Amino acid sequence: MVGVDYGTLSGRAVVVRVRDGAELGSAVHEYARGVISGPTPDWALQSPDDWRDVLRIAVPKAIESAGVAPSEVIGIATDFTACTILPALADGTPLSDRFPDRPHAWPKLWKHHAAQAHADRINELAAARNEPWLPRYGGKISSEWAFAKGLQLLEEDPELYALADRWIEAADWIIWELSGVETRNVCTAGYKAIYQDGAYPSEEFLAALNPEFTGFTAKLGAELAPLGGRAGSLSAKGAEWTGLPEGIAVAVGNVDAHVTAAAADAVRPGQMVAIMGTSTCLVMNGETLAEVPGMCGVVRDGIVPGLWGYEAGQSAVGDIFAWFVDNNVPASYVADAAAAGVSVHEHLTSLAAGQAVGAHGLVALDWFGGNRSVLVDHDLSGVVVGQTLSTKPEDVYRALLESTAFGCRVIVETFEASGVPVDELVVAGGLLKNAFLMQTYADVLRKPLSVIDSDQGPALGSAIHAAVAAGAYPDIPSAAAAMGKRIAGAYTPDPERAAAYDRLYAEYRTLHDHFADGAVLHRLRAIRNEASK
Amino acid sequence: MVGVDYGTLSGRAVVVRVRDGAELGSAVHEYARGVISGPTPDWALQSPDDWRDVLRIAVPKAIESAGVAPSEVIGIATDFTACTILPALADGTPLSDRFPDRPHAWPKLWKHHAAQAHADRINELAAARNEPWLPRYGGKISSEWAFAKGLQLLEEDPELYALADRWIEAADWIIWELSGVETRNVCTAGYKAIYQDGAYPSEEFLAALNPEFTGFTAKLGAELAPLGGRAGSLSAKGAEWTGLPEGIAVAVGNVDAHVTAAAADAVRPGQMVAIMGTSTCLVMNGETLAEVPGMCGVVRDGIVPGLWGYEAGQSAVGDIFAWFVDNNVPASYVADAAAAGVSVHEHLTSLAAGQAVGAHGLVALDWFGGNRSVLVDHDLSGVVVGQTLSTKPEDVYRALLESTAFGCRVIVETFEASGVPVDELVVAGGLLKNAFLMQTYADVLRKPLSVIDSDQGPALGSAIHAAVAAGAYPDIPSAAAAMGKRIAGAYTPDPERAAAYDRLYAEYRTLHDHFADGAVLHRLRAIRNEASK
Repeated sequence: MVGVDYGTLSGRAVVVRVRDGAELGSAVHEYARGVISGPTPDWALQSPDDWRDVLRIAVPKAIESAGVAPSEVIGIATDFTACTILPALADGTPLSDRFPDRPHAWPKLWKHHAAQAHADRINELAAARNEPWLPRYGGKISSEWAFAKGLQLLEEDPELYALADRWIEAADWIIWELSGVETRNVCTAGYKAIYQDGAYPSEEFLAALNPEFTGFTAKLGAELAPLGGRAGSLSAKGAEWTGLPEGIAVAVGNVDAHVTAAAADAVRPGQMVAIMGTSTCLVMNGETLAEVPGMCGVVRDGIVPGLWGYEAGQSAVGDIFAWFVDNNVPASYVADAAAAGVSVHEHLTSLAAGQAVGAHGLVALDWFGGNRSVLVDHDLSGVVVGQTLSTKPEDVYRALLESTAFGCRVIVETFEASGVPVDELVVAGGLLKNAFLMQTYADVLRKPLSVIDSDQGPALGSAIHAAVAAGAYPDIPSAAAAMGKRIAGAYTPDPERAAAYDRLYAEYRTLHDHFADGAVLHRLRAIRNEASK
Repeated sequence: MVGVDYGTLSGRAVVVRVRDGAELGSAVHEYARGVISGPTPDWALQSPDDWRDVLRIAVPKAIESAGVAPSEVIGIATDFTACTILPALADGTPLSDRFPDRPHAWPKLWKHHAAQAHADRINELAAARNEPWLPRYGGKISSEWAFAKGLQLLEEDPELYALADRWIEAADWIIWELSGVETRNVCTAGYKAIYQDGAYPSEEFLAALNPEFTGFTAKLGAELAPLGGRAGSLSAKGAEWTGLPEGIAVAVGNVDAHVTAAAADAVRPGQMVAIMGTSTCLVMNGETLAEVPGMCGVVRDGIVPGLWGYEAGQSAVGDIFAWFVDNNVPASYVADAAAAGVSVHEHLTSLAAGQAVGAHGLVALDWFGGNRSVLVDHDLSGVVVGQTLSTKPEDVYRALLESTAFGCRVIVETFEASGVPVDELVVAGGLLKNAFLMQTYADVLRKPLSVIDSDQGPALGSAIHAAVAAGAYPDIPSAAAAMGKRIAGAYTPDPERAAAYDRLYAEYRTLHDHFADGAVLHRLRAIRNEASK
């Protein structure tokens, strides 16, 4: 089974054994062009050829490193960043293959932020019209998503818009490349293209945005394909690129964060999966539909068929810790870390870990990159409270670690208050390696914390999807149970620390609620923006 | 004319020309014993011999460096840290000369903080009894002052308390040493020993604190001597030590901060003198008595005879900037500063100075060392609001500089709201050298900012007092006008920046008022203190 994970800067292929999920081999291909810039700094583009190269280079290498015969492989699946989206002809040809000189012909990467004005209009109109889908996205859709980017294309390059027969997620386009069959997966349609209750936003809504925008949904394809389904079979071209047998199963496309739930064997209701890196993405299945304030989205069948898939997020997590280390740490700490042979993060963590809970006297708001859930406000900013002349760098560092755990607790409590129980936090992502941080989350959340037991979560998750598509398992949960890797209860809350954190969390919550209306923080940002002109 | 300034770690003698205040020569003597520790870290003691050495060593050196004949000197005056206080016999002999092994025999330095419990009891009782003097001290007297330290002596070493015929400020004791005459100056009696409306606190009050404390005020001497007055004449012993002529005028003792007002020619009503260093001390004369919330004290004749002398303070100013540089600045900044041949402070200042007002998007509360005026709450702590992942060290540094200017503005506005107008800020002290900081104060306060034109403000101020005591001038204001050194209007507010700062100050004020009740900050400190046990 082969899983391919398309990230922002590289693609990774992993060969996985169907029986038990053993990772037999893997290979990474760094994109030649990476993130391509555009007319303004807000733009972020990618090249389809970089993605094709992953199939041509990383997949054969992974097979080779696994030491298995290509003929033993019975299926392939992929996951992608999202919403990474491109205009294509009716046969799947990217417009960038034809019009390389026009920026709008290229795929727009997830972090392309030049459609904010368009997103603002969509949100205003949706709020004014009380569109029923708006609460499914915490009250606000993102400038990163399919409609905002599509409206930008229409209004800034109408000729290319007209030529684009298709407006397709890279997650689905790569499946088209492999199988020759156009499919659209439930996950990106729901989370990124406002597909709810069997329909995209109405023609009336699109017409009110811009009369030329009517008909846009025809570019998004027709019927949706279920996750874990078989999109088609590996085409002759796909077989030639990958070295895999023609005709094996090609699974329906998926998204990196969502497919990680399968890799962590955490697709049952109440298992909240936290992919913790520069930011944190939270995904969880629920039995019922609830409108949770500030969530990123809830999509029927959005993570596995038959359940409601919830997504929420914290805008900046590892980014905050990195900012602190880059901008706030004196030379003596860097020297001490080097002398101890550890990173500055590790050094600060070990200094901070020795403290009793609350001994630093600090509490911080983790809004250095704004607040996605539950406030959906990117114009918020950070707050640090309680500093004295005795405050040391490790004190502030620890307070920042804790602030992200408190932010996570607010999200969990909001889910629970909305009728969506959270029983277990399952962590994947780069921040896993900080055991003190993990223990802090367990203590703050007062929940057992499990961790994924794989360094290549998304690719493993894709391989699990491939196994289902190939018919080796009847559904994603059973495949995840056999092939997914979770260390259950790796961290359990310490009652004494948990009680001490309850007091600090009460202070966090007080500050959170005080600054949540943005009164002070929005005015400071407005002053900053005016002054920086 | 010779002025001698007794600081915390050294004493400085300056020879000044009577006619125009020209500083002809000076010398510094570092104390051999400096700050002497005691039974707990809160203790801070000093040695009378260190002070005697300043007379024996620094004064003759200063005369020599001035190139004047000792016979040309017509008077000597001193200023001291306060409340620095010692127990002595009836003839002026310090108890530490007799009982060097007993900590309570030694002079307690101003920053001896081991009498907090005693101060707390004094404050509680005074509040309960509605003592009329309490509002004169902003509602709270300090653990640093004469009664708290005296009560500690009584209760911790009653035998020494009984042996102490005198409980005397070093400011007055040194005059006794020079002249052989015991005097008590109006300034320390008023600001440090609760002398108001012609009396110390009542015997009833003292009895309620501790029955044994009655009679305490008898140890404080009798009649008070006016500032600028002649305490007596230089004794034979004083002449031998200093090399100055026996019989010349010895002025009444004074305090470093208060005497600086004369040095800056800023003793007229409405001239607020800010001595800005690790902390800021603010002194100003007013025509009338007002009870200004949060002031440190108001004393009739406390700075110059005939006016009400007001004192206020900011607990930490330069200390905050030093804390930032020591704990928050990455190695690259230190290296850049070294490459440019400037201090880290200068480097950060030059980076910050290039920004438009408010471009950093931050506002901070300058409570890292608590808040003396106007909140009188040492359990408050710092707050920094508005940080993002783009926030740089120079941004926070500038926000901290600004926060102290905002804190100063709160004090000035509180004085004005209480009916005590402030027309001009006159700055002395080490932070003078940061021109950007000075301009920021002028802009934030919307007031012309004058600066003292001397590096040895207190010693020059003492020399001015000596000139009055010797009869060379009729009073302190006329001597200050001739000998004091002030560059009037050295910094004037820029209207555009002042308007921009008004918006930031409004945010500061909002945060100030929100956190002023200490609800969040006191709880965080309580958590810290419990956790640190």
